[in-house]
Amino acid sequence: MSADADINATWVAVDWGTSTLRAWAMDPGGRVLAQARSDQGMAGLAPGAHGFEPVLLDLIAPWLGQGCTPVVACGMVGSRQGWAEAGYRNVPAAPLSDNALTRAPSHDPRIALHIAGGLSQTNPADVMRGEETQIAGFLSQTPGFAGVIAMPGTHSKWVHIVDAEVFHFVSFMTGEVYALLAKSSVLRHSLDPKGFDEAAFLEAFSDALSHPERFAAKLFTLRAEHLLHGTDPQVAAARLSGALLGLEVAGAKPYWLGQPIALMAAGTHAKRYGAALTEVGAAFTLHDPDACVLDGLRAAYLTLQTAKVA
Amino acid sequence: MSADADINATWVAVDWGTSTLRAWAMDPGGRVLAQARSDQGMAGLAPGAHGFEPVLLDLIAPWLGQGCTPVVACGMVGSRQGWAEAGYRNVPAAPLSDNALTRAPSHDPRIALHIAGGLSQTNPADVMRGEETQIAGFLSQTPGFAGVIAMPGTHSKWVHIVDAEVFHFVSFMTGEVYALLAKSSVLRHSLDPKGFDEAAFLEAFSDALSHPERFAAKLFTLRAEHLLHGTDPQVAAARLSGALLGLEVAGAKPYWLGQPIALMAAGTHAKRYGAALTEVGAAFTLHDPDACVLDGLRAAYLTLQTAKVA
Repeated sequence: MSADADINATWVAVDWGTSTLRAWAMDPGGRVLAQARSDQGMAGLAPGAHGFEPVLLDLIAPWLGQGCTPVVACGMVGSRQGWAEAGYRNVPAAPLSDNALTRAPSHDPRIALHIAGGLSQTNPADVMRGEETQIAGFLSQTPGFAGVIAMPGTHSKWVHIVDAEVFHFVSFMTGEVYALLAKSSVLRHSLDPKGFDEAAFLEAFSDALSHPERFAAKLFTLRAEHLLHGTDPQVAAARLSGALLGLEVAGAKPYWLGQPIALMAAGTHAKRYGAALTEVGAAFTLHDPDACVLDGLRAAYLTLQTAKVA
Repeated sequence: MSADADINATWVAVDWGTSTLRAWAMDPGGRVLAQARSDQGMAGLAPGAHGFEPVLLDLIAPWLGQGCTPVVACGMVGSRQGWAEAGYRNVPAAPLSDNALTRAPSHDPRIALHIAGGLSQTNPADVMRGEETQIAGFLSQTPGFAGVIAMPGTHSKWVHIVDAEVFHFVSFMTGEVYALLAKSSVLRHSLDPKGFDEAAFLEAFSDALSHPERFAAKLFTLRAEHLLHGTDPQVAAARLSGALLGLEVAGAKPYWLGQPIALMAAGTHAKRYGAALTEVGAAFTLHDPDACVLDGLRAAYLTLQTAKVA
């Protein structure tokens, strides 16, 4: 998607992950004037301004005026393999703070890049990068929230919020394991990830929740059911998804049990995690991840303005 | 490895799996005259005699005399994607029976191919193909064994033997999941599978055994430990292996608890599963998988001879 012409951005918001780059042209009031998207995520780029800057400029150049436009970015763009490393702050920590942005080098005088740092946890070791900005956005809309934010994804996170800070969190490799099994394992012959058989999903979910130790056996059962009983590949895909979510929700029990839960998810994730949380009797509210990341980038931009005024 | 010349096989034993083909030239007394090996496993070949026969003849032609030489094969060569499908027999069943061999079509008059069928289980759905021949070989050496055979591998199996029959079994996708995670996931940056740090392995094993529900979180911890603490990649690889084995041994507890265990493993598998079984206080004897598969093929060849005499 190419950027619109005739746009003059006051600042540019950027969410640059492993596989996707998204940018928004913002007006002085924080309204979106235009948006653009590219598949040139971190994974395909050479580290440093050398690899990243031309890609960003390709996307947002039509929005840039004569002066220097601030760009506020979050996500893997701030990792060691990104444009510039924006360090982790250790929890407990606010998802966004006055020193959360790192000024990153750029060659083109039309942009001044600021990258949000991630959060880290010492024990158990854990990291997030990008989610802290979504959390900051969520908290800007829901100040005073105390409870747990569930963030499904490639590396799903459960985040305990206390006093507007990230107190503790845990990541699960659920999404990545699902993709590996569905695309690259022997199960690929037995699965069709289209559709959503909720009954099959919930049965596998409950089974994995009660018996997480059977996970690796359940995987092979999916293959054998296909060979012996010709199980519908959509049913098998729902069972794989259910087994992985059951394992995750079992492992995340110390997080969700008795806590208010904000589920930050859309589409397939919202449907599956919503069904899973309902199944375990956990009440939750649903929040749009895109709206949250944009609100988080707005909040980060405000810290820059505040710093200038101070 | 090419086959030796000046060998005249009475019959040929073949173990043809997903990734490897092995063949042995046998004398009338069941002694090995020569052996050969190829990387042309089932996965790389077109189904049917068309794809498989030239590969086998390339390997064993030097062993064939003027007449027709019986070839007895086991493994994925008998799957739907193999040379010819050798059906499953449903458990409880002897690992080898008079009707366990399927006569498969071949074009070259110098060979007569017989493929061992696999075993299946209806509920939970499960299958084995190749292992039944190893089990038959093991039982030919250990008649009267009652207990459990643990068979580590790409799809590890735990097999309950009662009255010389496979009574019940369970497969775990442990080996395949390890390979996918180590080679294709974000963990590939944090792991070095060389060496074996037994302390790290056992710690992760015990942790997963007690808390299998934390498995997907433990995976991400390996990544975060590397990023934050620069964990030695060999330690991380041992922890991944320990976590996967802990999950498997937890799931296989109904099999190993209070049972005599025969561990059919060599090399790395023998070391790791041996350490794991010792850790849970399970006594076991160790058996060589290669010797067992060859003994199983010998036993299968004998059923052919018996059938001729009868």
